[in-house]
Amino acid sequence: MQIIVNSIQKGTDEFASELNEYRKMSAKFASIKDEIFFNASIAKAQTIDRASALRAYDEVYMPRLKGYNIALDERGEELDSMEFAKILDGKNLVSFFIGGAYGLSDDFKDKCDKIISLTKLTLAHKIAKLMLFEQIFRALCINANHPYHK
Amino acid sequence: MQIIVNSIQKGTDEFASELNEYRKMSAKFASIKDEIFFNASIAKAQTIDRASALRAYDEVYMPRLKGYNIALDERGEELDSMEFAKILDGKNLVSFFIGGAYGLSDDFKDKCDKIISLTKLTLAHKIAKLMLFEQIFRALCINANHPYHK
Repeated sequence: MQIIVNSIQKGTDEFASELNEYRKMSAKFASIKDEIFFNASIAKAQTIDRASALRAYDEVYMPRLKGYNIALDERGEELDSMEFAKILDGKNLVSFFIGGAYGLSDDFKDKCDKIISLTKLTLAHKIAKLMLFEQIFRALCINANHPYHK
Repeated sequence: MQIIVNSIQKGTDEFASELNEYRKMSAKFASIKDEIFFNASIAKAQTIDRASALRAYDEVYMPRLKGYNIALDERGEELDSMEFAKILDGKNLVSFFIGGAYGLSDDFKDKCDKIISLTKLTLAHKIAKLMLFEQIFRALCINANHPYHK
């Protein structure tokens, strides 16, 4: 199984070593790729307005839609860890999309198979990503009937 | 304003430097204390059963109830960041209680003023605590009408 986590993100991960640890622990169940995107066009668009920013994200993300596509969005469906695990179960390729500072366009979200929210709280990007990596590892353990080890 | 975050937790914080950073950034609005509890009686009780563990947590936590008391519990009320901020607004002393491996006793939760859940997902303790510290800082910024800076 392959899981791709796509982020619109300037600079490297602040929790790089933690993310890497979850990725390594997950490796016996799935290969997880952490794909980070940022470019001059996104930087410029974000200084213009929301609509421009969302269009710039789309340009990067649209070609990245592959396998079962899951958008993270604060107005998405809230799941518990068992329900989250069920979504990953039996899939060969799952792509997650974390939005930029302005989220994700409605157009892009419409093209995804599922839109989920990790919490009702507004989260710092770095914490959302950390939560997602932990939940992916937890889900893989649940689906493999394997005890969860920190 | 004073905020006390109480945790049943063996060992030091895995995200100590991040927690400390949020605490420092929060310092202009509130003093935040990170109080960690673990003892031989909790360690032993956790090897017996859930009820014993919850009783051992109660022994430590009951005397810590002070000010406006907020229990974190996965079946608690889910709030967005604005609602969370409203709870802290105007309080002099707020105590948060993060449960141990078995959560918190019903008895203890009944004594709290509010029971909240950060997410429907099952979370690693270290991530729950990181989320809480970030939300506290975010809430303090909201209440002070101050822009949120990472």
